Amino acid sequence: MKLIITKTYEELSEITAQIFLGKMYEDRRVNMSITGGASPKGAYEIITKEMRKNQKNFTNVHFYNFDEIETPVTKRYMTMDGLKKEFLEPAGIHPDNIHPLTLKNMKEIQAELHNTGHLDFMLLGMGADGHFCGNLPVNCEFDKEIYPFQLNEKVPTYQIYMDAFGDPEDIATEYVTMGAAAVMKVKHLVMIVNGKKKALAVKKLLSQEVGTDFPSTVLRMHPNFTLIIDEEAASELDGHY
Amino acid sequence: MKLIITKTYEELSEITAQIFLGKMYEDRRVNMSITGGASPKGAYEIITKEMRKNQKNFTNVHFYNFDEIETPVTKRYMTMDGLKKEFLEPAGIHPDNIHPLTLKNMKEIQAELHNTGHLDFMLLGMGADGHFCGNLPVNCEFDKEIYPFQLNEKVPTYQIYMDAFGDPEDIATEYVTMGAAAVMKVKHLVMIVNGKKKALAVKKLLSQEVGTDFPSTVLRMHPNFTLIIDEEAASELDGHY
Amino acid sequence: MKLIITKTYEELSEITAQIFLGKMYEDRRVNMSITGGASPKGAYEIITKEMRKNQKNFTNVHFYNFDEIETPVTKRYMTMDGLKKEFLEPAGIHPDNIHPLTLKNMKEIQAELHNTGHLDFMLLGMGADGHFCGNLPVNCEFDKEIYPFQLNEKVPTYQIYMDAFGDPEDIATEYVTMGAAAVMKVKHLVMIVNGKKKALAVKKLLSQEVGTDFPSTVLRMHPNFTLIIDEEAASELDGHY
Amino acid sequence: MKLIITKTYEELSEITAQIFLGKMYEDRRVNMSITGGASPKGAYEIITKEMRKNQKNFTNVHFYNFDEIETPVTKRYMTMDGLKKEFLEPAGIHPDNIHPLTLKNMKEIQAELHNTGHLDFMLLGMGADGHFCGNLPVNCEFDKEIYPFQLNEKVPTYQIYMDAFGDPEDIATEYVTMGAAAVMKVKHLVMIVNGKKKALAVKKLLSQEVGTDFPSTVLRMHPNFTLIIDEEAASELDGHY
Repeated sequence: MKLIITKTYEELSEITAQIFLGKMYEDRRVNMSITGGASPKGAYEIITKEMRKNQKNFTNVHFYNFDEIETPVTKRYMTMDGLKKEFLEPAGIHPDNIHPLTLKNMKEIQAELHNTGHLDFMLLGMGADGHFCGNLPVNCEFDKEIYPFQLNEKVPTYQIYMDAFGDPEDIATEYVTMGAAAVMKVKHLVMIVNGKKKALAVKKLLSQEVGTDFPSTVLRMHPNFTLIIDEEAASELDGHY
Repeated sequence: MKLIITKTYEELSEITAQIFLGKMYEDRRVNMSITGGASPKGAYEIITKEMRKNQKNFTNVHFYNFDEIETPVTKRYMTMDGLKKEFLEPAGIHPDNIHPLTLKNMKEIQAELHNTGHLDFMLLGMGADGHFCGNLPVNCEFDKEIYPFQLNEKVPTYQIYMDAFGDPEDIATEYVTMGAAAVMKVKHLVMIVNGKKKALAVKKLLSQEVGTDFPSTVLRMHPNFTLIIDEEAASELDGHY
Repeated sequence: MKLIITKTYEELSEITAQIFLGKMYEDRRVNMSITGGASPKGAYEIITKEMRKNQKNFTNVHFYNFDEIETPVTKRYMTMDGLKKEFLEPAGIHPDNIHPLTLKNMKEIQAELHNTGHLDFMLLGMGADGHFCGNLPVNCEFDKEIYPFQLNEKVPTYQIYMDAFGDPEDIATEYVTMGAAAVMKVKHLVMIVNGKKKALAVKKLLSQEVGTDFPSTVLRMHPNFTLIIDEEAASELDGHY
Repeated sequence: MKLIITKTYEELSEITAQIFLGKMYEDRRVNMSITGGASPKGAYEIITKEMRKNQKNFTNVHFYNFDEIETPVTKRYMTMDGLKKEFLEPAGIHPDNIHPLTLKNMKEIQAELHNTGHLDFMLLGMGADGHFCGNLPVNCEFDKEIYPFQLNEKVPTYQIYMDAFGDPEDIATEYVTMGAAAVMKVKHLVMIVNGKKKALAVKKLLSQEVGTDFPSTVLRMHPNFTLIIDEEAASELDGHY
């Protein structure tokens, strides 16, 4: 694991953008999987600005979502809808280069990743409960590549998810996610965490025993893992990291 | 994971030898780490016979032990002494290409592996208690690359080890081993298991939840893992593997 | 370049088979391209015997021809017909894992190789005139990946080809071949040459200036190239190789 | 080959910096070889500014010069002296991570690169005569990894070099350079060319037959080559690139 602590969120975003952009200029197919949410917003601003300059340069780059939550009533694809709005459309990615993973096509996507050499790059965030992709505490299965996950009361943070979604009638109880076995195959894995609110989670990520209690602990075993955090997120760490 | 079930131990040995030999003929430095014990004897017979034909062909191949047990009284290096006798000397490996890992030099060896691109190949066996390298149940640490392991009464199989060694006055209570984080960096990981005695262990390896209770379960997450077992070792598996 | 000189053709065949078989047991898609003709017969015998034991082990392996000559009158596919007869059918390769390259689909095959990470392994022979794949002296183009080749009188060995084919009315004057730029992308390139008849060609391969006069000279620049020759083929070399 | 044409030199510099910086944040040893001269100045300004922010992040990155010219009288190391001044010192690279190649140690450096997995990244410029590294027209040898090059009157641009150096008494007539066979082993090769003065050279690079007459033509065969040029350098190309 390589740990990078930046002074500010802006510096975290710049480094993330450099890594991301650097991957795309090679003369070969590049498979990427990226996170939504608040943490990558700064990086995505830099990246989309660069990508819009000349989209011909990125025809070799393909994008996959690493989980998908389909709402049962309104039939929204919560992950892909978010990624399109936050990154894929502003960056001008051609629809042919976007490969939506769903509960229905998960076997086909797993076969496609196998055939195209797996993911070259994955950008992850981390939940306060230690989840990465859709791997929630206790219930997640480390040996799975892509698998359906049951959101039920065994998940300790179940109530938090229920509250967050607002409408309990429209919450998926089964969704799809890449598991730790798929993430281990990613050639370069980058996780970004920022802000004081995540400081305790970062401490657990780095010190707690590897296990499903805090799923991201398993990433400490990844063959090529870069963790980028700002000073606020690092504030609970003692000096020796 | 790729599972290969062979009719016989001989076939298991042949396939293992093909993989092993195939790695060595490339035009680049190749780092290997190999197991001792009974399981690889058949493969080593085939391999040493081939290697003795023309040792000039293997100057690019380097060998590392993945654990080392130094007896406190007689000062033997149990792993390396065994590997030398069972494989390295019969195969005629030049001493310059043998890199003994010990408790003393573990930081240097970890740096050397980092500098030379990590291991290209590791050949593992599995203990009935699920251990791989020196990672024993419950006490092993999955996030470590190379680390000192304490053999004490917390290890459930402690008494078995005591009995096996014969002389309790001459048993190492601390030894060194590569951990799961080092094994995840191996480019191609191969484990061989044979015989009825290991059938239950194979079943656990493939079905038990990933965890330190049965350490080899963690290998199901490895990015490029080939498990080769004979029909006897597969006899407790139900059909769907 | 790694040069292996074997005492006999049998030893050459065994080493070739070990390399070939070793590639197939990994837990990932493997793309291979292989040669026809006399040189690989010994290796193919060993390999097909192994592969027939359990074909389930090879569902991840895909085969591509590196050139194709379509006869204008009888509409035969000379390369693929030969490969099927000499290797693919005896080895029991599933038709889904065979990807015939033709003049018509060369753009699609090039895109497919780009998408699936290019070839992991190529097994080549060499012509007495230094040709590899369908890259004939003087007229071949080193910077091409897959391209149509014109067989005409500018090719110094033109008459030899005419004579060899027997029926001048049924000889392709345009065919398709992978060029040096495609071969440079092969992860591990192996060429086998045996017999006294090829001794002078081997000498040229290793000593002549890199150029289209003797096309195989360009392979000395390959990033991971293993050349396996028997003592007869090595008989024109002076000692320092 | 991947061709990127930028509107301006600034954009060329930014993309170069993104690729360069992106390589360094991985959790593994990274070997780089970089060019001096005018073309990379813009990129080096961006890179050094980033690197000075936190040099702890780059302890895994190692730098090699790809050629060295030692002046016979004043005993200067022209390449390394330039790189230190233009990049390595401003970027704050630790001396332990700088590996100077010289005529004397070329065998040791070749062995070191072999042992550490070869170069991950090389940044090249191109001379108007098509030279890359120290591979000058006609006299260069494509099959060499690292070799001594004789600067003599057979080199068509000999007189230009004599004039450029000013003092004919202090010009090296033998120097060391990485050859095409070493460059083929670079995991990602990037060449940058800018300005109207180089427009004709760019045209030759992309259209002339592969050969030592215009050495950079050989790079069209590289397995992973990105060529970045600005619109001025692209001005002699017709539309179809």
